Formats: sequence, structure tokens, C-alpha cells
Amino acid sequence: MSERIKDFHEFRNKMNERILERGNLEIKRFFALDKNAYKTGALTAETKELLGLVASLVLRCNDCITYHLVRCVELGISDEQIYEAYNIGLVVGGSIVIPHLRQAVARMDEIRSQNQD
Amino acid sequence: MSERIKDFHEFRNKMNERILERGNLEIKRFFALDKNAYKTGALTAETKELLGLVASLVLRCNDCITYHLVRCVELGISDEQIYEAYNIGLVVGGSIVIPHLRQAVARMDEIRSQNQD
Amino acid sequence: MSERIKDFHEFRNKMNERILERGNLEIKRFFALDKNAYKTGALTAETKELLGLVASLVLRCNDCITYHLVRCVELGISDEQIYEAYNIGLVVGGSIVIPHLRQAVARMDEIRSQNQD
Amino acid sequence: MSERIKDFHEFRNKMNERILERGNLEIKRFFALDKNAYKTGALTAETKELLGLVASLVLRCNDCITYHLVRCVELGISDEQIYEAYNIGLVVGGSIVIPHLRQAVARMDEIRSQNQD
Amino acid sequence: MSERIKDFHEFRNKMNERILERGNLEIKRFFALDKNAYKTGALTAETKELLGLVASLVLRCNDCITYHLVRCVELGISDEQIYEAYNIGLVVGGSIVIPHLRQAVARMDEIRSQNQD
Amino acid sequence: MSERIKDFHEFRNKMNERILERGNLEIKRFFALDKNAYKTGALTAETKELLGLVASLVLRCNDCITYHLVRCVELGISDEQIYEAYNIGLVVGGSIVIPHLRQAVARMDEIRSQNQD
Repeated sequence: MSERIKDFHEFRNKMNERILERGNLEIKRFFALDKNAYKTGALTAETKELLGLVASLVLRCNDCITYHLVRCVELGISDEQIYEAYNIGLVVGGSIVIPHLRQAVARMDEIRSQNQD
Repeated sequence: MSERIKDFHEFRNKMNERILERGNLEIKRFFALDKNAYKTGALTAETKELLGLVASLVLRCNDCITYHLVRCVELGISDEQIYEAYNIGLVVGGSIVIPHLRQAVARMDEIRSQNQD
Repeated sequence: MSERIKDFHEFRNKMNERILERGNLEIKRFFALDKNAYKTGALTAETKELLGLVASLVLRCNDCITYHLVRCVELGISDEQIYEAYNIGLVVGGSIVIPHLRQAVARMDEIRSQNQD
Repeated sequence: MSERIKDFHEFRNKMNERILERGNLEIKRFFALDKNAYKTGALTAETKELLGLVASLVLRCNDCITYHLVRCVELGISDEQIYEAYNIGLVVGGSIVIPHLRQAVARMDEIRSQNQD
Repeated sequence: MSERIKDFHEFRNKMNERILERGNLEIKRFFALDKNAYKTGALTAETKELLGLVASLVLRCNDCITYHLVRCVELGISDEQIYEAYNIGLVVGGSIVIPHLRQAVARMDEIRSQNQD
Repeated sequence: MSERIKDFHEFRNKMNERILERGNLEIKRFFALDKNAYKTGALTAETKELLGLVASLVLRCNDCITYHLVRCVELGISDEQIYEAYNIGLVVGGSIVIPHLRQAVARMDEIRSQNQD
């Protein structure tokens, strides 16, 4: 099983808990909004994860990209669909997105191999 | 008919022509890639326009938002779907996105009224 | 009385109403979080407006800068304090911030003259 | 003579004076650093203006782009050279740069026509 | 004592020295402006560090966040105050700020534990 | 020989291959445009690498900075010229660029030492 994806989840969960247990109500509410934004509504959860993925690509946030890739795989979004989303992120955001695309491809290998365990 | 949307298209088309007629082959190729990125493939054109819309929101580009809204209306994407995309742009990009959301709502009024003429 | 500041408020209020009346609950909640973030707590409202002002400067959003300047004047923050905040925004964000600093100074004239009416 | 470029310079000069006369020494020093950065040294003034132009394109600041275009024309940089710089800005920064490219081409027309008066 | 914070300071100090010893006068002057921006004036050093912290959060720079957190602790700014500043950074900058918030909380643990040695 | 620069190239080359072998034609075309943008034309390859370097600095992408520094050294661009480019990136992009400047100086040491092997 991939250590890096496991480490990613452990650090993410531990720190989210730390932030939320501090009890700043506004920050808690923001985290709830963030979670709700990706639930099925007029748009499917699949489309919403792809929206989150492309927003993360053009804003160039590796952790956010990894998180949305994990969710895309859980929702059964195909590699072809993900690559078309990558292409939109690349065209809109430019070559500065490429290093994040390389990370995304490396992370995806780990996500797929983790799921085969 | 809405003047501002008409002005937007006129300036956009005129300047695109100017840029392309200059004959820098690389820039022409980039414009072609930009156009192709939104065509139906493994993802539908509808999903791709929403990806372009959210990327434009979080990167805070009014002209890009207007362009994708025009296309979303042409493709029959509903207001409910657009507002859910707005919400993802808002949560990912933060309150700094709000002024662009106000512009988006104002432009959408013009786009809808233009289509009724 | 300054027309531009009046126009700014009218457009802002009208569009906020439009966005909120649409009834997307998540967007309403985000707007509430945005409003609450600047209320006095462990930090004073004055400090929080300055935090909003500098964040808006480095993210280069003219509308957000104008809004926080209006609030800074309402809270009695002095010009000397605002210029020191400008300086931090300038040093952190670089010369790309300067055009927004010019807008800020022009808007501040209107805000001050409006308040003398 | 182009009104918009004239307006641009008038507003820019008037507001720079306003900012500098306020006497915040640190801001004055920053403005001096900004001016000095483009003087001939180990790199020519021409190369430095192109560096400023591309930085302004990828950071998407219309006023900064206009300023560097005025300087590029004063220094005799050719259209072919400027278009190759545009292309680098476009490839690095992505399609989000295109609306600023359209503005740049429109401003350049005014700059050239102004110089013929 | 925390190794990571120690490493952060060592790399930071060593590289700053390297940059400054190269003798590019303009870069030296920029570093001086950066240092001066946070000194008590019309605003307190405490307020200025919080301005630097929120600017660093919304621009999403981990090293800058760590530096301002070290200074906030040295100046006796409370956790409650820092969390309210985090909240403004989160609301203004959006969920893309969250991974940097997680880093900030992890770094703060090290800063506090280092100070207890 | 520097391990980190070697690792950088290995990961970069391996992942570029992975991305290109997937066969999304649009992404392949984007990579070709990216490569072509830096070839000698109306501007020299040297000027173009410096344009890429400054764009990477103000957009704050360490991998992109490293890549352009490797190319700058291959093209014989002097340290004095690179530091003047750094200064423009610093003035335009602000103190938020400084952590990337520190990385750039550390990477440059490795590039120079690698070339002496």
C-alpha cells in the first residue's frame, strides 16, 4: 500500500481534527461548507469533483489535487475523463500547471495501487 | 438587446482577429488548443464549460466568466446548475470571488434578455 | 456627494440581494461567514478591517479594497495607519499592487468627501 | 491623439504624486526601487522592459502591461519581439491571459497612433 | 527542540546571507524595506505581524506563514487572536488556504515546544 | 554530482513521458508549444529563458525556476544578469517571492557544482 497517500490522509485527518477541536465556530462552519459543496444536487458529485480538481489545478495546490483525485477514483471517473479535465486546467492555467500535473500523475499511480491492495 | 454583451463580443472578435492575423504561428496554435479543449470527448461539452466557468471564477477573470456563461446558456445548462458551480468557485476561491459573482449575475441578466429578443 | 462610491454601493447591494434571493443555501451561509469574520472578538473590528484591506491589496481586488476602506473610515482608522497597511501590502505583494494603490487613494478621496456632505 | 493613453498617464502621474507627497518614507523607497529595476545594467533596458511586460502579463495587470508597452515602444522594441514575449506570457500563464492580450493589442494601437501625432 | 523550525531558520539565514553578500544593491534595499515594514509605527508591531500572516495565508506561502507565526509568538499574540486571523485568511482566500492552515497548525506546535526547551 | 538536480531531472523526464504516452493529443500539443516558446526568433534564446525565469518567479513555481536556471547556465547567462532578473521578479512580485529566491540560490549552487563534475 502506498505510504505517501497514507501519510497524506493521516496528516490531513489529524490536522483537520486539531483545527476543528479548537472550537472557532466560524472555521468549523467553513469546513462544513467545503464538505457540502461537493454533494450531488443539480450537478452530480462526479461533475463537482471534476470542478474541484480543475480549480485546484489552476490554483496550483498539490494537496487539493490529490484529495480530488482520491475522490474521483472513488466515484469511478475514468482516466480519459480525468485527462480531459487536466487538459482544461493546463490550457486555462498555462505551463505553470505542468509541475502539478506531474505530481498528479505520480499520486494517481499510488491511489490506483493502494486500491488494488 | 443588451449593449454590453454585444460590445463584449465585438471587442473580443475584433481583437482575436487582430492577434491571429499577425501571423505568430505559436499564438495561433494556442488559440486552437483553447477552442478544442471545450469540445465533447470523454466529458460532455456541458461539463467542460462548467470546468471553464469555475476555473475562470477562482482565477477571477470577468471576461472569461462572461464567455463561459454565454456558452453555458447556449448549451442549455440551468440556473440551478450554474449556481452550484458558483458555490464551488466561491468555497474554493473565497470571498475575493464575490465581486466577480456579482458581475456574473449582472452579465447573465443581459445574456438571458438578449436571447429573448 | 461622490457618485462613484454611491454607484459602488448600489450595485453591490442590488447584486448581493439578487444572489441571496436565489436561495442557494450554501452561498447564503458563505455570505454570513464573510460578514461575521470582521466582528470584534479576540481581535478588534479595526484590526480585522485592516487584515481584510491588506488581504484585498495583495490579492488585487479593487472592489474589496474599496469596501474595506469604507469600513476603515467608519471605524475611525487614521490615514497614517492606512498608509502603513498599504506599505505592508506593497512590500508583500510587489509593484503589481501599485495600480490598486492608486485606485485606493482615488476612492478614499471620494469616501472622505462623501462623509462631509 | 489617443485619449485613453493620455488619461492613463494623467491618472497615473496624479496618483503617484499623491502617494509620494503623503511622505511615508518606506513607500517612497519602494517606488524608487521599482523605477531603478528597469535601468540598464548587466541586462539592457530593452530586456528588462520585456521582463516587466511578461511578468505583468502572467500576473494579469492591464495598467502594468500598458506602462511596459509604452516603454517598449520608446526603446524601439519591434512588434515581432513584443509578440514573441506575448507568446511566452500566454504559454506560461494560459488562456486566462488572453483577455489581457486583447487589451494589450488595443492599447498598442493607441500608443503607436499617439506617437505619430 | 524542534528540528524542523531549527532547519527552517538555518536555511533561511544562510540563504539570506548568500543573497545579500552578492552585493546587488537593489535587492539589499528590498530586504531592508521588508524588515522595516513590520516595525511599530502608527500601527503596533503586533497588528503588523498579523497583517503579514494573513497576507501570507491568502497568497499561500508556507515559509512566510511560519516566519510570521514565529514572530507572533515572540510578540505574545494569543492563540485566539491567531485563529481569528486564520479565519479571515480562510474566508477571503477560500478552501485552497486549508492545506496551508494545516501546515500552520503543525508548525505552531513546533514553535511552542521549542520555546519550552 | 548533485543528487537533487539529478532527481529533479529524472522525475521530470519520467513524468513527462508518462503524460505524453497517454496520448491525449491536446496535451501533447501544449507541451510542444511550451518547448517552442523558448527557441531563438525575433528574441534570442537567452532573453526568452530570462522571460521564463521571471514569469516563474512572480508565479512562484520552484520547479519552473529550477528548469529555467538550468537552461540559463547552459546558455552562458552570467550571475550578474540572473541577479538583475531576480531583482525584477522581487520588485514586481514582492517579498512573497523571497522564499523562492532562496530556493533558486540553493539550486544554482547544485547546478554549478554538477557542471564541474
